[in-house]
Amino acid sequence: MTPAAAVLTPRADDFPRWYQDVVAKAQLAENGPVRGTMVIRPYGYAIWELLQAELDRRIKALGAHNAYFPLFIPESYLRREAEHVEGFSPELAVVTHGGGKELEEPVVVRPTSETIVNASFARWIQSHRDLPMLINQWANVVRWELRPRLFLRTTEFLWQEGHTAHATDAEAHELARRVLEEVYLDTMRSVMAIPVLTGRKTDGERFAGATTTWTCEGMMGDGKALQMATSHELGQNFARPFDITFSDETGASAFVWQTSWGASTRLVGGLIMAHGDDRGLRLPPRLAPVQVVVLVARADPAVLAEARRLASSLGAAGLRTQVDDRTDVSFGRRVVDWEIKGAPVRLEIGPRDLAEGQAVLVRRDAEGKEPVSLDAAVGTVTRMLDDIHASLLAAADRRRRHDTHEVDTIADAVEASAGGFAVLPALAVDGGGERDLNAAGVSVRCLQRRDGSLPERGDPVTELVAVVARAY
Amino acid sequence: MTPAAAVLTPRADDFPRWYQDVVAKAQLAENGPVRGTMVIRPYGYAIWELLQAELDRRIKALGAHNAYFPLFIPESYLRREAEHVEGFSPELAVVTHGGGKELEEPVVVRPTSETIVNASFARWIQSHRDLPMLINQWANVVRWELRPRLFLRTTEFLWQEGHTAHATDAEAHELARRVLEEVYLDTMRSVMAIPVLTGRKTDGERFAGATTTWTCEGMMGDGKALQMATSHELGQNFARPFDITFSDETGASAFVWQTSWGASTRLVGGLIMAHGDDRGLRLPPRLAPVQVVVLVARADPAVLAEARRLASSLGAAGLRTQVDDRTDVSFGRRVVDWEIKGAPVRLEIGPRDLAEGQAVLVRRDAEGKEPVSLDAAVGTVTRMLDDIHASLLAAADRRRRHDTHEVDTIADAVEASAGGFAVLPALAVDGGGERDLNAAGVSVRCLQRRDGSLPERGDPVTELVAVVARAY
Repeated sequence: MTPAAAVLTPRADDFPRWYQDVVAKAQLAENGPVRGTMVIRPYGYAIWELLQAELDRRIKALGAHNAYFPLFIPESYLRREAEHVEGFSPELAVVTHGGGKELEEPVVVRPTSETIVNASFARWIQSHRDLPMLINQWANVVRWELRPRLFLRTTEFLWQEGHTAHATDAEAHELARRVLEEVYLDTMRSVMAIPVLTGRKTDGERFAGATTTWTCEGMMGDGKALQMATSHELGQNFARPFDITFSDETGASAFVWQTSWGASTRLVGGLIMAHGDDRGLRLPPRLAPVQVVVLVARADPAVLAEARRLASSLGAAGLRTQVDDRTDVSFGRRVVDWEIKGAPVRLEIGPRDLAEGQAVLVRRDAEGKEPVSLDAAVGTVTRMLDDIHASLLAAADRRRRHDTHEVDTIADAVEASAGGFAVLPALAVDGGGERDLNAAGVSVRCLQRRDGSLPERGDPVTELVAVVARAY
Repeated sequence: MTPAAAVLTPRADDFPRWYQDVVAKAQLAENGPVRGTMVIRPYGYAIWELLQAELDRRIKALGAHNAYFPLFIPESYLRREAEHVEGFSPELAVVTHGGGKELEEPVVVRPTSETIVNASFARWIQSHRDLPMLINQWANVVRWELRPRLFLRTTEFLWQEGHTAHATDAEAHELARRVLEEVYLDTMRSVMAIPVLTGRKTDGERFAGATTTWTCEGMMGDGKALQMATSHELGQNFARPFDITFSDETGASAFVWQTSWGASTRLVGGLIMAHGDDRGLRLPPRLAPVQVVVLVARADPAVLAEARRLASSLGAAGLRTQVDDRTDVSFGRRVVDWEIKGAPVRLEIGPRDLAEGQAVLVRRDAEGKEPVSLDAAVGTVTRMLDDIHASLLAAADRRRRHDTHEVDTIADAVEASAGGFAVLPALAVDGGGERDLNAAGVSVRCLQRRDGSLPERGDPVTELVAVVARAY
């Protein structure tokens, strides 16, 4: 039994408990005093900042610009789109008093910003020259949660929400799909090392107010699904009530076509559950706040000096590096700490290593240690970080394939969902099939073509499959 | 009369109206539907993002880590520090309903996060080894505003708030002063090109809950003062009610000493008012979303190709560059647009320029144009941007000196404050003097030593001066 096993509940015993343990012991987050709220601690927030930077770069590469819209929305705005208000009403937080007085019209704390963004779009968009308009916002939103879980389902969460307007339905469709693939899917594979499935939501699982919802679905360590990001085509559902029109080249007036899309701090929860093991987090290197920890084994001035020199070389090579010189804490205890925190690479150095001109190199995603000469350490670690990303992605991909079962009936799908995903003909979940699944605690995660690619609009349902699973 | 003069109200006619015009015409921000809230448009938000990055880098250089604390705070938390709750109660927004039900305890939307951060600090800090603890948060906060003005005074605003805990009063004092100088003062001078004064607030102007408040005060184009950032020493005012203790080297338990400090989107308002002229914004280059605009004079393929080549060279040299090829809009109209938007440098290029192998170089902060050879443009513009920063800073500094008057009495101070700052012996504002000033609409912006440096604690009031002004 390694020391870490004493610290964390093993995943096989109780996965939710293991998750809670990791979030607490890795100092990622803790509950706020108001039920459902979350304090994101510095280590957890550093992961989120890295993820934000990756998403933001891709969002800007699409041509979108960041902006900021108010937290408070008049209640009347939400009522303008019938499905939207019905979807969000049960989750709203309502401000009734401001500045010491009761408000004439209560305001809601934004659960999402379609309504308030579109009130601006109606002013900003006049002509076809103003289109496409691509806006993104980084913000906090509030949806009252009765069964909160840190990162996965919190009353307040942080996210980005994109909002776009286009001259044609086809352009909106194309943008929604580009976001799905170039922003979300690419970040998840290339940065988070999570091999998500992409597909279309069923009508029952669509965003309230969308005509089509596209989704990225990841498989977690317990075989359950996590919806990791969604991209919606809104048709003209908001353009009509908010009166967002433009004059086309001929001078005729028309309603715009829109999309919206978001990804949130929930992704940090996905990262934990997709890669974590019984010793704690395993962070993909591109999101690790500390990519390499240089662990000083003993309080020896020469060792400490060499550790600092080494860390400085690693830092100069662009690696996020930290020296752990807390020699008043036992070496074993510190190893356990860094394993819980999921630092991808550890370089351990003591007096004997120094005498031999080497350090001990340990990678978090595999067993075993190897010596590395101090001169070669920077190059070796740099290459190893890329390899760790690839290994984590490959391992997650193997597990997903292994735990995905092709079935034909709803009953078999429910059974297979006990430990993974089930794939069955989409026809089986049409109508009553989806209801029966839901009654058994299983949901349709997405519809795909048989080859796993995205369905096109004209595809007959007989050509599609449904991926179903228990989900967070 | 230049075309811009037709677009904006001249500053001398009506400065507040000029400010509103610039905010609207430069597309910086607009009012949200709930009174006092603000939509920050992409151009305004891009300025804020650049400013955020500059502040964030300096905050991290102090050793602080970013984290995130909940938007919602139990009402009871605020009541724990008497002065704090008294200061903020009139400005609170209160959520009484969540998830379709009336809440058992109403929650307030954070007006600032001292109380909720310190509830976490009480858990996180156990030993002297946990100190100093330096935490920063980027967030939105809400303070109900009866007389809102975009950027300057809005019900919701964006800011950073730092919160630290230290083993000794001396360390907390030192950190509060380092933040004032290394984070705020340096950003304002080196990035915003605003020569702010620094000093200590009087007891009447202190933050609710602080023992000492340090401030940066800028002079705006109308001679009024803007408080641009503050850094507070909190003593043990929050440590005691939140029970934040640590065990020192001897094992004895003691309360921590704390600081908090913040700067907000109000800085964007300061930027507008410190540098703007009758033609619009004048952005200091380090905060300009577009540092160089390449203006295509006529729809000519060769000109367009050269403009793009030039922009690409400027971009490769690290300059934020945009090509304006909207040749369906008149050249004059576009020049006016870019002057309103304050782009520091314009490169105008038409067929005749191209034939002569040159472009016309125009800097926003000065009159006149000069030709620049296309080959030399990148080098010339790069140097010019540094020069523009220096010129804006020097001009603001000259104006501040010119409009600051040394006086001896409250009556003279009130008179001098009609068009600038007044400096008078601090003794004059002690007690009743400050009250009389306030009654005349003038306030003490800060206390300094006679030489303009920061006062130390032991300094007798007879050695200090008070800088007073009308203020935003």
